Amino acid sequence: MSSKLRVAVLGAHGRIGSEAVRAVEAAEDMELVAALDRDSALDELTASGTQVAVDLTHPDSVMGNLAFCLAHGIHGVVGTTGWTEERLATLREQLAASPATGLLIAPNFSLGAVLTMRFAQQAARFFESAEVIELHHPNKADAPSGTAARTAHLIAEARAAAGSPAQPDATSTALDGARGADVDGIPVHSVRLRGLLAHQEVLFGGVGETLTIRHDSLHHSSFMPGILLGVRRVVTTPGLTVGLENFLDLG
Amino acid sequence: MSSKLRVAVLGAHGRIGSEAVRAVEAAEDMELVAALDRDSALDELTASGTQVAVDLTHPDSVMGNLAFCLAHGIHGVVGTTGWTEERLATLREQLAASPATGLLIAPNFSLGAVLTMRFAQQAARFFESAEVIELHHPNKADAPSGTAARTAHLIAEARAAAGSPAQPDATSTALDGARGADVDGIPVHSVRLRGLLAHQEVLFGGVGETLTIRHDSLHHSSFMPGILLGVRRVVTTPGLTVGLENFLDLG
Amino acid sequence: MSSKLRVAVLGAHGRIGSEAVRAVEAAEDMELVAALDRDSALDELTASGTQVAVDLTHPDSVMGNLAFCLAHGIHGVVGTTGWTEERLATLREQLAASPATGLLIAPNFSLGAVLTMRFAQQAARFFESAEVIELHHPNKADAPSGTAARTAHLIAEARAAAGSPAQPDATSTALDGARGADVDGIPVHSVRLRGLLAHQEVLFGGVGETLTIRHDSLHHSSFMPGILLGVRRVVTTPGLTVGLENFLDLG
Amino acid sequence: MSSKLRVAVLGAHGRIGSEAVRAVEAAEDMELVAALDRDSALDELTASGTQVAVDLTHPDSVMGNLAFCLAHGIHGVVGTTGWTEERLATLREQLAASPATGLLIAPNFSLGAVLTMRFAQQAARFFESAEVIELHHPNKADAPSGTAARTAHLIAEARAAAGSPAQPDATSTALDGARGADVDGIPVHSVRLRGLLAHQEVLFGGVGETLTIRHDSLHHSSFMPGILLGVRRVVTTPGLTVGLENFLDLG
Repeated sequence: MSSKLRVAVLGAHGRIGSEAVRAVEAAEDMELVAALDRDSALDELTASGTQVAVDLTHPDSVMGNLAFCLAHGIHGVVGTTGWTEERLATLREQLAASPATGLLIAPNFSLGAVLTMRFAQQAARFFESAEVIELHHPNKADAPSGTAARTAHLIAEARAAAGSPAQPDATSTALDGARGADVDGIPVHSVRLRGLLAHQEVLFGGVGETLTIRHDSLHHSSFMPGILLGVRRVVTTPGLTVGLENFLDLG
Repeated sequence: MSSKLRVAVLGAHGRIGSEAVRAVEAAEDMELVAALDRDSALDELTASGTQVAVDLTHPDSVMGNLAFCLAHGIHGVVGTTGWTEERLATLREQLAASPATGLLIAPNFSLGAVLTMRFAQQAARFFESAEVIELHHPNKADAPSGTAARTAHLIAEARAAAGSPAQPDATSTALDGARGADVDGIPVHSVRLRGLLAHQEVLFGGVGETLTIRHDSLHHSSFMPGILLGVRRVVTTPGLTVGLENFLDLG
Repeated sequence: MSSKLRVAVLGAHGRIGSEAVRAVEAAEDMELVAALDRDSALDELTASGTQVAVDLTHPDSVMGNLAFCLAHGIHGVVGTTGWTEERLATLREQLAASPATGLLIAPNFSLGAVLTMRFAQQAARFFESAEVIELHHPNKADAPSGTAARTAHLIAEARAAAGSPAQPDATSTALDGARGADVDGIPVHSVRLRGLLAHQEVLFGGVGETLTIRHDSLHHSSFMPGILLGVRRVVTTPGLTVGLENFLDLG
Repeated sequence: MSSKLRVAVLGAHGRIGSEAVRAVEAAEDMELVAALDRDSALDELTASGTQVAVDLTHPDSVMGNLAFCLAHGIHGVVGTTGWTEERLATLREQLAASPATGLLIAPNFSLGAVLTMRFAQQAARFFESAEVIELHHPNKADAPSGTAARTAHLIAEARAAAGSPAQPDATSTALDGARGADVDGIPVHSVRLRGLLAHQEVLFGGVGETLTIRHDSLHHSSFMPGILLGVRRVVTTPGLTVGLENFLDLG
């Protein structure tokens, strides 16, 4: 009898979903037992003996999908966005009724992005200056990126907790916008360049030295190692976990 | 009899001037014959047989210094700023009266900075997107730097000459300043970080690829190779030359 | 009557060839009139009124393809490799018999790669130190890459022409390989990293400053702008041209 | 009565020592009570009421200095190199006799370098590929740098602990040295470039993404924040601590 993890992918025909199907199929310790799209019936999950459901659908359908999974003791790994405190409270109630079931909700499955944020948070209190540069393809609608804004927020929080003074900046004459957007006191700069996908650079500066943490995402497949890691860990982590960083044992 | 170039430094006690004194002394093909500060008499130049005067003084004194030099057939290499068309016209008149004398005025003696501008200008028409990031110590008063603004201007000029369309940019929601300062249509971002000196990155992006030209100035001595090159070339280049790039034979 | 350039792609089913088909179709000033694979007859070219043939086939078939094209006054843009002096001599003879026909052979159609080499060549004589770092996916068989070796060779040539002394390097104790491969006196370092495609960094260092030229190729489509530029220029450039740089008017 | 920490600097006339004198004088919570050079008597430390001695002398004198300090309950912050297990055992014995006294020995006081190593260690097990590039001025005698070798060793250790397979690398034809030095299976590349001081880049690569941690040391003053942090923490950390990272509360 196989001891492989029995995994289903919901949203299997989407761009990320179809990558996830391939990634699960390629993983030696997993078996893809179901691949659902919007027309599929959820009881394919129970019929196939799914242990972990990877939900890469939409905010509109995810709550219904998860209600079904949690009611049937199926662990969840979820990559949709748009989470509110209210939605999370609903999930916590459902999980309370299924105490052995685990649920991971992650706004970002890229290990590189998650590590960049974590290291930025750890480094923040040791340097006088911190700025964030994010670089994306020119079809992106928002500036700065959500990840860059979140990174800047985490840096600001860590500086505040450490009692760091305001950043040194003697700028007295500036063109509008030159010093970037202000996110909680951290300047964030957004570059839009044909040829790029998604990149971020966090710069720290102290007396005589700088530390730079750079993440380059060159292909959408970069989410796959994080999704697989989530699948492996969620089965032994009952309850709700928000953020892949909680599964990285970073201390 | 020595065939070394007889060089004087004006402003020899300033930060850049004292570096220039050391650089001339160390150059095998030059001899430092005079080092003047604000209290020195200009006839030290004639008395010492100066062939090339390196002027690293102030906008207030440079016109007087050059009038003296050109009247005595002494070539000039000048690093002061604040040049106007009127001042340049005056110099051209004085040079007309001394047709064998050469005068180089350079806003930037760093070879790396000059090459960066030149390459940016050459690359501009081959890419859809171009942006400039400049990074300096936090005591700098202006943003963006003069070099970054000039670089962006040169890129915009080259794009216009080639008939390039506007840059692609789908940004529809942005925090104020996120997309940088607009210099002739080229976004320019200014980073201020403790630990840095003067750095600039020019980014070009096209289908599937990017080209980055980065200049890092880590010490004020970076001006010296450019000053020495100017001294060597000015003696065989009669008339007024504005910009070190004209002495680099870049084609 | 349409004034669009009538273009054929040979090797249209290959990875690069199929990108070329799409790129020609998308170009407003071109019309794709034929797409040949290994089983196609070459007289499709004459039947379709092809003006420019883009050959992205193999060293085995390219000479036959070009003999046909040149005999029929069809211009060629060629991306295959493996050129010898003998083969080039044959092509020159065929071109002599068809004096209005142009032929471009380019080992690299990436504008970024070609500009990187050109700028490296121009910058070489102004700096004491130069090194090359190339970074590729880990499936690459050779190290360093052909582009990196060629770049190092061009730098060495430019330094020799300028009479530059050997690079400063006080290394007296080194682990084997730490200082990279020696290509005509220029150290070249090869990085192999999952997640990368093809990247190259050329570093120059002088007193107090460094200049870095970096090319990132993130997708195979990066060859397309260079191929299209070649198509547009070859029709007005009779004879043999080797290297896309000759069509870039870089001075 | 002042509540400032009473600090002495030993080796106060050396390059790093004289920076340390200035840094202690500038710190608001410290008072420089003694600055010793090789001719000074150690009882200046007791006479001045020194609480913390910063030793930036030589391997030859450091053991004598520390014996005196520990015997008099003076805490130590030590930046000399050349530590053996035997020397550390001696210090542990002396500390056992003075249980309230703290001693910090740190091979590297740069916060950026220490954080780089720590982050590299944490990131190592999440990526298939890892390489290290270190870049220094051309007067450096050894390649790779001690910090780069140590970083590679820590990465290899973390990969081994996580059971990571060997790095992917299909290189079959290589110029000697192209793939760098092998440090416990991690390729390390050493660049030597005029204009640089001390720089290190750690590259990680996984499916579709890369993570780069870069440390730039632009001035020797970069050691000062780490030395001051050591002084502040050593007074409440009895016993021997090896490595500044132990004082950074990185979890």
